[in-house]
Amino acid sequence: MPATILIGVFAEIPKLRPYTLLIHGGAGNITELSAERERLLYTGLEEAFAAGEKVLEGGGSALDAVCAAVCVMEENEGFNCGRGATLNADAVVEHDAAVMFEGHSGAVCGSTHARHPVLFARAVLERSPHVFLAMPPDSLLEEWDLERVANDYFVTAERAEQLKRVQAAEAIAEPHGTVGAVAIDRNGHLAAATSTGGMENKKHGRVGDSPIIGAGTWAADGPHGVAISATGWGEMFIEGAVAHEIQARVRYLGQPLAAAGEGTLSDEVGTRGGYGGVIIMGSDGQAAAAWNSTHMISAWRTESGVHTQLA
Amino acid sequence: MPATILIGVFAEIPKLRPYTLLIHGGAGNITELSAERERLLYTGLEEAFAAGEKVLEGGGSALDAVCAAVCVMEENEGFNCGRGATLNADAVVEHDAAVMFEGHSGAVCGSTHARHPVLFARAVLERSPHVFLAMPPDSLLEEWDLERVANDYFVTAERAEQLKRVQAAEAIAEPHGTVGAVAIDRNGHLAAATSTGGMENKKHGRVGDSPIIGAGTWAADGPHGVAISATGWGEMFIEGAVAHEIQARVRYLGQPLAAAGEGTLSDEVGTRGGYGGVIIMGSDGQAAAAWNSTHMISAWRTESGVHTQLA
Repeated sequence: MPATILIGVFAEIPKLRPYTLLIHGGAGNITELSAERERLLYTGLEEAFAAGEKVLEGGGSALDAVCAAVCVMEENEGFNCGRGATLNADAVVEHDAAVMFEGHSGAVCGSTHARHPVLFARAVLERSPHVFLAMPPDSLLEEWDLERVANDYFVTAERAEQLKRVQAAEAIAEPHGTVGAVAIDRNGHLAAATSTGGMENKKHGRVGDSPIIGAGTWAADGPHGVAISATGWGEMFIEGAVAHEIQARVRYLGQPLAAAGEGTLSDEVGTRGGYGGVIIMGSDGQAAAAWNSTHMISAWRTESGVHTQLA
Repeated sequence: MPATILIGVFAEIPKLRPYTLLIHGGAGNITELSAERERLLYTGLEEAFAAGEKVLEGGGSALDAVCAAVCVMEENEGFNCGRGATLNADAVVEHDAAVMFEGHSGAVCGSTHARHPVLFARAVLERSPHVFLAMPPDSLLEEWDLERVANDYFVTAERAEQLKRVQAAEAIAEPHGTVGAVAIDRNGHLAAATSTGGMENKKHGRVGDSPIIGAGTWAADGPHGVAISATGWGEMFIEGAVAHEIQARVRYLGQPLAAAGEGTLSDEVGTRGGYGGVIIMGSDGQAAAAWNSTHMISAWRTESGVHTQLA
């Protein structure tokens, strides 16, 4: 059994309002971050959080809020999702995304032309009898009134350069980077959304945990329900059924959110040699973030304003 | 909330040996079954069970046993997997399969040329850094020494006729039919395998619960570990994280296997208007099957020999 990489770090987030959200922009062991990238990430977190909170303040649903927050990050080149996502081994951007709300879910993997993969996942929930589509045909974008762009739109110079370095073995592909949001609305409903370009230099068709309900994304209403979005080394999150394991510890063991998140990361991800993080929203508006990597890019509201962190 | 379709039915299977297996050939509300199909299913169950048991008797691993059993059913035209699987809306057979053993998993969805999709899933576990590949390229079959066949090999006259009737609205596509096996070996390790053609007339790329770890397939070792393979209306099994929910009820609530299976089907599948079944193997060799459909095609060993059932 591989050694645990890092001991869990977690944050209990106080309940300040009956409706709130929590977002993340990826977890990992980041070794270098340019000033430009850092600026992009801080701006992205602030704008995404504000977009989600505005929906909730206006009485919108938790699903509307998490989609609004994730859409902002999908437009921001700093995050590994939407525009600026990592490239696969064929230098193509393949997006995975999922949403869950009121017991129902929608997910896509291998999306290549939807400008907002999270809205593609939402359309699977709302407009299809299915819940998970792999390599969905582009014809669905028109059928479901979703914005279509060329795959090149997503490719940034920085990611293209990074792929060359990884393929020339000058750099290591970091298995991190995913964005997500969890929220509770005025009606007490929970929602989660996750969106990613997946692992850099991945084989065509590799699916990580993001679009897997119960692994990278989860939301259940009710007294012990939680909403979860995960980020990290997806393979271990799938094998540990991380999001649903956290739900089970909260529901059946009565654990606080942060303890359930930290224990699950340690038992299911750390013991497999992996790392990453999760954001968790409880059915009473209490929230938590837990990670076992050096970085957990995230944002939440505190008494003194919106807290944004890259480390 | 839709009404529960049927009340749960379940079977507690006595522990007779330290190593054993349990297989299923699909669950559903079957309205007609030709004598020829019935004969194929009974023969398939008997041969598949014998193949798996032979592996365990010879000291083989639980993973070898579940793969052996599923391979037999993949060759048998009576089941919705391998040869004889349902056709998608484009009249192509797209297989989904997964395996899990010793905390690690492998899965494929949209496989179109692997003669044995379950062995493709196993190769993802054993030969790839990934755990889930969607629409995996055929080049992997050669790279991993797996037998490749034309997609036509899988297409039977009966399934082609059935698709025409469904597309002409003369018949209803039944969202059932999947095969699976769970086993415990002499070393006390648990394994699960699931293989399917998925929902008849499905959209290209639709993924059901079979290849989703924690939904249709699961195995965890240890004192409260269980191995699970599910069959039924996949969308609801994904949204309910059915396999992992059963694991959680066994581990954290101390429920007997049959009660955990029946309760989960009722709470997570029935309330969503769905139906299906699960087979469950416990870490002590105790097993159970649970279903909320009229039929649960399955086989297990009893004191008087191997029990096979279509109803």
